[in-house]
Amino acid sequence: METILRINCTDEKGLVYKISELLFKNDFNITKNDEFVDEDNGRFFMRTTFEGDCDREQIAKEVLVMLPPNSKVDCVDGRKKDVVILVTKEHHCLADLLIRNQFKDLNFNILAVVGNYETLRELTEKFDVPFIYIPAENITREEHENQIKETLKNYQFDYLVLAKFMRILSPNFIHDLEGKIINIHHSFLPAFIGANPYKQAFKRGVKIIGATAHFVTNDLDEGPIIYQDIIKVSHSKTAKDLAKIGKDVERIVLANALKLVFDDKVFIDGNKTIIFE
Amino acid sequence: METILRINCTDEKGLVYKISELLFKNDFNITKNDEFVDEDNGRFFMRTTFEGDCDREQIAKEVLVMLPPNSKVDCVDGRKKDVVILVTKEHHCLADLLIRNQFKDLNFNILAVVGNYETLRELTEKFDVPFIYIPAENITREEHENQIKETLKNYQFDYLVLAKFMRILSPNFIHDLEGKIINIHHSFLPAFIGANPYKQAFKRGVKIIGATAHFVTNDLDEGPIIYQDIIKVSHSKTAKDLAKIGKDVERIVLANALKLVFDDKVFIDGNKTIIFE
Amino acid sequence: METILRINCTDEKGLVYKISELLFKNDFNITKNDEFVDEDNGRFFMRTTFEGDCDREQIAKEVLVMLPPNSKVDCVDGRKKDVVILVTKEHHCLADLLIRNQFKDLNFNILAVVGNYETLRELTEKFDVPFIYIPAENITREEHENQIKETLKNYQFDYLVLAKFMRILSPNFIHDLEGKIINIHHSFLPAFIGANPYKQAFKRGVKIIGATAHFVTNDLDEGPIIYQDIIKVSHSKTAKDLAKIGKDVERIVLANALKLVFDDKVFIDGNKTIIFE
Amino acid sequence: METILRINCTDEKGLVYKISELLFKNDFNITKNDEFVDEDNGRFFMRTTFEGDCDREQIAKEVLVMLPPNSKVDCVDGRKKDVVILVTKEHHCLADLLIRNQFKDLNFNILAVVGNYETLRELTEKFDVPFIYIPAENITREEHENQIKETLKNYQFDYLVLAKFMRILSPNFIHDLEGKIINIHHSFLPAFIGANPYKQAFKRGVKIIGATAHFVTNDLDEGPIIYQDIIKVSHSKTAKDLAKIGKDVERIVLANALKLVFDDKVFIDGNKTIIFE
Repeated sequence: METILRINCTDEKGLVYKISELLFKNDFNITKNDEFVDEDNGRFFMRTTFEGDCDREQIAKEVLVMLPPNSKVDCVDGRKKDVVILVTKEHHCLADLLIRNQFKDLNFNILAVVGNYETLRELTEKFDVPFIYIPAENITREEHENQIKETLKNYQFDYLVLAKFMRILSPNFIHDLEGKIINIHHSFLPAFIGANPYKQAFKRGVKIIGATAHFVTNDLDEGPIIYQDIIKVSHSKTAKDLAKIGKDVERIVLANALKLVFDDKVFIDGNKTIIFE
Repeated sequence: METILRINCTDEKGLVYKISELLFKNDFNITKNDEFVDEDNGRFFMRTTFEGDCDREQIAKEVLVMLPPNSKVDCVDGRKKDVVILVTKEHHCLADLLIRNQFKDLNFNILAVVGNYETLRELTEKFDVPFIYIPAENITREEHENQIKETLKNYQFDYLVLAKFMRILSPNFIHDLEGKIINIHHSFLPAFIGANPYKQAFKRGVKIIGATAHFVTNDLDEGPIIYQDIIKVSHSKTAKDLAKIGKDVERIVLANALKLVFDDKVFIDGNKTIIFE
Repeated sequence: METILRINCTDEKGLVYKISELLFKNDFNITKNDEFVDEDNGRFFMRTTFEGDCDREQIAKEVLVMLPPNSKVDCVDGRKKDVVILVTKEHHCLADLLIRNQFKDLNFNILAVVGNYETLRELTEKFDVPFIYIPAENITREEHENQIKETLKNYQFDYLVLAKFMRILSPNFIHDLEGKIINIHHSFLPAFIGANPYKQAFKRGVKIIGATAHFVTNDLDEGPIIYQDIIKVSHSKTAKDLAKIGKDVERIVLANALKLVFDDKVFIDGNKTIIFE
Repeated sequence: METILRINCTDEKGLVYKISELLFKNDFNITKNDEFVDEDNGRFFMRTTFEGDCDREQIAKEVLVMLPPNSKVDCVDGRKKDVVILVTKEHHCLADLLIRNQFKDLNFNILAVVGNYETLRELTEKFDVPFIYIPAENITREEHENQIKETLKNYQFDYLVLAKFMRILSPNFIHDLEGKIINIHHSFLPAFIGANPYKQAFKRGVKIIGATAHFVTNDLDEGPIIYQDIIKVSHSKTAKDLAKIGKDVERIVLANALKLVFDDKVFIDGNKTIIFE
């Protein structure tokens, strides 16, 4: 059984030593250890996997007391993450995640899918996942978000995945879920921020299109980037073609980002991510 | 001997027919033919290579009279393009081009290198290419550009290549050389327009950096894109690392773009390019 | 309504002229035209799209009579291709195709899925596609293939897609379906031909893994390649990780190859393909 | 001043602890730490960078005594690596390395270039690097290699780089330089082992070509792979085109591999490499 210890704290001398001493004295065998110091911000990040029977809570506590104030320590067993997905009408990312959920290709459980349209109910229910319809029409953004929040209360989730949820979330909504919301953005950020990125890309005559998966913060499209990828395109593609091609990039980028997050490999460091692959 | 016929005109029925008829009646054998209609703008683009003895000027004339008004026709033999290069202090793109010039790896001749610093004289002269130093200090932009223009008069060049020329050219300068100036931009346009793109990229925490080669027009960084490429990066790279990695992308992107242009494969279509690879 | 004319014949002078003349005289407007001569084999390939009302069969006949003997001419309307899929136990490619079928993301209809295990019945039937179970156990290869052939007689299909069908087809079976069978091979051909490619790749310590979609011919893994792609990997990946990562490449490679084939963009030229994108 | 500690030994419990304890007691601050256990072979690999004044030899000794028998420990300051380059006639990789040497773009010094033809003397000497001509004609392989060995005795080099050296080295020659010879192979290994890979690739109709940089061992083309990359190609490329395109891949792959090696990031693990980027 492998355990993962994750640490995020102010940098200081001796951190690796103190932590590895504790692991050694508990008779654990470290199988992989990654550590990185963000020197600009004086932050220390460490991810260690080790083998051996383990009271994870106890270990986390023991580590925490050695570290500088305000440190974050997780000691986890790599369990599946529980996830709620928000969608609008586009199916490509959701379908990909439902398949991965069904066949256990990704380290997660989809608890529910919430849509502001009914469009994706049928697809979701095919895979025996509950679909909750919360329309946004004729109510304020606040009312809509409150209804979503009410629904979310029914689920103990680790992450909220925006799989082409085409509404902008309010700072208030995001605030309570800081570091727990992951979005797939339909462009290679920071290019083409905002609406209709494929039309923008077509008009600009780009030779590459891309997609970006990121944590959501209050700055629109400015949250910490987890994964990006691109595909080359030529003049012969229409704006519609680009959107279609882009969907395949989006799917893969979102799945790759989620794999990293669900395997506990991603740390948030201000508006960046530290990723130990 | 292969001849390349290039046509850019208003779209209308029968263009391929009329042109191929003329080629057939001249007993030419078409070896490759690419044609594309930009339906948004009603433009027709065609590139045909054919074999057979040929009075190229005559063919171009005969084709031109069949086409709608304001058509552009080139009938070329794929000869080497004559090029002047503008540089500032960075060597990576220039060195790459000097090597390709020396070993005939690219279909061009470098006539001269013009620098606003002396930094790259030694490198340039190693390869027996003239280096002309035109400092920009203590004079106006206009005076500086006038001096460059005077120098350029000494050369019959097809293209002016900005190989990390770090000054912004005035609309006036650009106007006279429309479609003849190619720039390598140190980012994946349209992301990170303007100065210090690698620092911007570092601060944003991107997972990919790129470069863009484009024709220069009066809109800064908005000219028709010829080629783009990217490379993946991780959190462990500093802004300085990104700049270094970026240089390798820039070199390759510029060389690939120039290969396409010098092989007569690129058409300008408004702020886009049509490229028949 | 757009029509696609596809020609594959012995090269000779005047082909483009004769064909475009016929299109012009029928008052069609060519929107895209690609032509390529394989000089090693003296073969001419052309793909033309044009607009205008059209008796496609008639056009094809008229074109055929102008061409050298043994030419192949198709005049098609880009209709959806009818497809039967063969599978074994792995779901990743099949699931991807079922989703694309359901949401019309690919220019095809899945008529049926044939499996030599029951494993993928449930998934297939979720999407209202018939699943036919034809076990291979306790019978000869010939008997098994005969049963498949019997089943295939019930379907008018354009292509047979091997979406991780893990049995080798006999030359006899393939012969009757030459040019109609498409396979996804779990490696970057011609590396790691044969069984267990990910284990081979792991043992060899490669830094890149890939996948190849190709037409099936009698030479195992030697049919014309349609599409290939790769992904970079590091030493930290186990053979099992590589297989998992490889599945994402396989899915995308197969989908991209099928898109090209179903959009009538692929020509077979001996053991190669000519693709007009 | 940053110091790099590199350890390669049999895996056992407590290694990270013991090593980090020693660093802590010497008052060093670890800035980056990567560790990996190859579980198949029971090998432990660690690379740690730390800050602080340091008697590197002393540290290496102190670490060594704590480790299991037959461990390898390096404690280095990231100094430039001294390199001799072997070439034949092709210039593209050599030119790239000479430029990087001249402008300090890579962490190395080129001590000399040895060629079995005079072809690259002029290029080499342009950059004030000695060129030694050792023809292979009319002598046995053994005599030729003996002459090269004699020449190499004049240089204290860390690595011997085969930058398109087109002769096969004998096991005897390689044996003495195990782990010190780096080759660029003109294909995406293990595809197209042996001669004329681009012609092989053309004949096979591949859609991707690649290059591989690897350490040289007695198995031809079977040494530990350091870096690989690829580029997509289409049917329109001739074998000659592929070779040309391949050269750009080769240059970049070799430079990227050397960067990793010269920055002390690469460990050899049997016929694989462990790379801490």
